[in-house]
Formats: sequence, structure tokens, C-alpha cells
Amino acid sequence: MGEFIEKMDKALVDLRDGKFVLIYDDDSREGETDLVMASEFVAPGSIRTMRKDGGGLIFLMISNEIASKLKLPFLADLFSDIDDKYPVLKALIPNDIPYDTKSSFSLYINHRDTFTGITDIDRSLTMKRFAELTKKIGNLDDGFATEMFGRGFRSPGHVPICVAAKNLLEERSGHTELVVSLLKMADLTPVGSGCEIMGDNGRALSKINAKQYADDKGLVFLEGKEIIKAWKQWSR
Amino acid sequence: MGEFIEKMDKALVDLRDGKFVLIYDDDSREGETDLVMASEFVAPGSIRTMRKDGGGLIFLMISNEIASKLKLPFLADLFSDIDDKYPVLKALIPNDIPYDTKSSFSLYINHRDTFTGITDIDRSLTMKRFAELTKKIGNLDDGFATEMFGRGFRSPGHVPICVAAKNLLEERSGHTELVVSLLKMADLTPVGSGCEIMGDNGRALSKINAKQYADDKGLVFLEGKEIIKAWKQWSR
Repeated sequence: MGEFIEKMDKALVDLRDGKFVLIYDDDSREGETDLVMASEFVAPGSIRTMRKDGGGLIFLMISNEIASKLKLPFLADLFSDIDDKYPVLKALIPNDIPYDTKSSFSLYINHRDTFTGITDIDRSLTMKRFAELTKKIGNLDDGFATEMFGRGFRSPGHVPICVAAKNLLEERSGHTELVVSLLKMADLTPVGSGCEIMGDNGRALSKINAKQYADDKGLVFLEGKEIIKAWKQWSR
Repeated sequence: MGEFIEKMDKALVDLRDGKFVLIYDDDSREGETDLVMASEFVAPGSIRTMRKDGGGLIFLMISNEIASKLKLPFLADLFSDIDDKYPVLKALIPNDIPYDTKSSFSLYINHRDTFTGITDIDRSLTMKRFAELTKKIGNLDDGFATEMFGRGFRSPGHVPICVAAKNLLEERSGHTELVVSLLKMADLTPVGSGCEIMGDNGRALSKINAKQYADDKGLVFLEGKEIIKAWKQWSR
């Protein structure tokens, strides 16, 4: 038990220090390890590490409250609202995701000060500024929060946003919910950046190799069930 | 002139052989070099090379005819059609793209046989199968083509599709139009896969370093203006 508390503590300290934490969801889910960090500390070098050592999708994970304040919809809901006009959306309906019941994708954004939107400098700017924005909108009414959002960002863009389920870990235990919970426990803005770690065999890096990577870099490796356990104690 | 024809010929032969070609758009545009290849030959190793040696967005580029047959909309058009219901889309309107007037992004897809959608195996499956689909839809009426598309793919997904401008290089000269033109000249299905090459300094890899990479790997490096010149001769 002491070891578990120590590991969780180091994960929260590392997040507050702008370091990466490795999160493996679950054998029965995606079975993927993501490199994650608090978006407020993302710099160009963080994006470089994510694309070189991760290699998957580099994305933002945010709390449901932030999405709700900015009126950011789930893409799947938006699509189903306009599929009479665009029947291709009806054809492509995502009703067979193997590891979950619902896609957590929302919009893809670029900060308006980016150029192409894809360089390490551009993606880090988009992520960092998004985290900064969310610190300012807490007390604004929704319409004004959306307006501020639009002054700084455009969509389509190169940085996908995934939105956590409303009831967080009680409802879904994907990387998005795990990361948002961790950031809340660390008392940080619940906006995380992450990237899945790929292996050289065409699949996600195995759990054992992801653990080895964490050890080599001095980073904390957490499994979803450990975060769920800590969250239950913390939110009690 | 002989050297130019020789280089263009090698580019078309390489594309037909399933090899990468490097395409730099233009100093006055993005100033980025993309690693591109014909999607029908994409394998897990191709995705690995794109994410490791490229590091940008790994995306599909398709002709306007294919998009039209599948009724695939530009995302920006779809967004503007539903922005009364989702005012955040009005706020995020992409009216200030620095290097062009219009975003070429359409939907993000996964093949329905993928698991997470993001591994090298999954992304290559999505790309290869999409290229195969486009070979079968030429003579179908649009509604049936869309239905076949939906049987194989879902959206949201992890592979973005960029759609070339209707009048191709006469209208726009982004990577999407350059690649679709090259594939047509190579007599291949106009579905390309590509990824921007990033540098270690936070920016896109410089033109001179991208050329060096091409030399080291024995790949052809083309500039947009060269493809435009060849296209004018070819389509005359």
C-alpha cells in the first residue's frame, strides 16, 4: 500500500512539474500505453517526444465541464444531427467501436497564431493556449466563453480534442477519463495532452516494453485500475 | 530538360513500385516537404516510416471526383451548414488560414476491421482498403457507392481525408492537388498517403535537409512547380 501511495504521489508531482506520465488503460480495453502530460506545460520539445517516442495520435483530453462551457459537441452527435443532409454520415455511423460504446472525439483545432498547424511549435502553441483559455472561462457565461474560444482558435485544425464522459470514471475508463481524473487529483487544469506509444511490429508497444521505457526515463507507469482506485479514495 | 524528364519518370515509376516520393510545395506556401506514396501500396511499414521519418499528420489525399462519388463533404462546408445549432462552429470559422483560402479537410475515418484505429497495422488497413474501394465505385451510382463506403468504414476515425480542389492544379497547389496530379500521371488510383516531415528545431524540416534525406534514401525529391510544369505538358 505504501508503494502504491508513493507511486501515485510521484505521478501527481511529475504532472505538476510538466513531466510525462505513462498510462496503460487495461488489458480488456485498448491495451495501449499513452504518454501524457498537463497541456499547460506543453512545449515544442514535448510534441517532439510524443511523435518520436509515441508515434500515435497527438491529442487533447478535456473535462466534460470545459466542453460544456465552450459548447464543444461530440463529433458523433454533431454528425448525427446533420446526417439527413449528408447521408454519408449515416453510412459511416460509428456503431461498432470494438473497445467502447462511444467515440470521445470532438473538434480538431488550430490556434489562430499557428502557420500550418502541424509543426512542433504550432501544435504546442495550440495545446498550451487552449489550457490557458480554460483557466479564464470558469466564471464567464457560456456564450462569451465560446466567443473567446473562437477569437483564439479555428476548426478544422490539426489538434483533436477528446472529451471525457460526464460522470468520468464512473461512466467510462478510457485514457481521456483517466487523464482528466489524474489532473484533477493533481489540482491542475483538467486539460491533458497525450499520444499512444507504438511498437515496431505494427501494433501498440507492449505493456512490458512500455514499462521498460518508463523505467529508462525515470517516469511513472500507471495502469487504469490504479488510477480508478486512487480516484475512488480521493473523490470520496 | 533531359534531367527533368528523367526525374519525373523516376517519380512515376517509384510511385507505381509503392515507393515514397518527397514533395516540397513552395517557398511561398507551406514550405513543407511531405513523404507521399500511392495508398494502394501502403503497408504497416509505410506508416512506421511516415511517423518516424515524417512526424506530421498521416493523411489521405483524394481526387475531387472520388469525394463527389462518395458524397464526402469538406468539413468546413459541413460545419457552416450546422453552425446555427452549434454556434461554436461559427466562432471557430477558419477564415484566416495563412497559406491558402480554404481548408481541404474532409472526414476522419477508420476501417471497420480496425481495433483502436491508430496502430501501423490499423492505419495502413484503413488507407489500403480505401484505395481498393475507390477502384470499385467508378461505375456505381452515387447512393450505392456511399453505402459500400459505409459498409467498410466508420467516422469519426484516425485517418483524415483531404480532398483536392475540383480544378486541381488550376485552382490550388497544395500537397493534395500535387499528389493527386502525380498519381493520375502515373496512371494509379488517385488516392495518396502522406505525412509532413518535421525537423528537430520545432519547425518543418528545411528544404535542403529534406533533399539530403531523399538523396540518402534514393528517393525522388520534387518541388510543386516541377509537378505543375509536368502536369501542364501531360494534360495538354
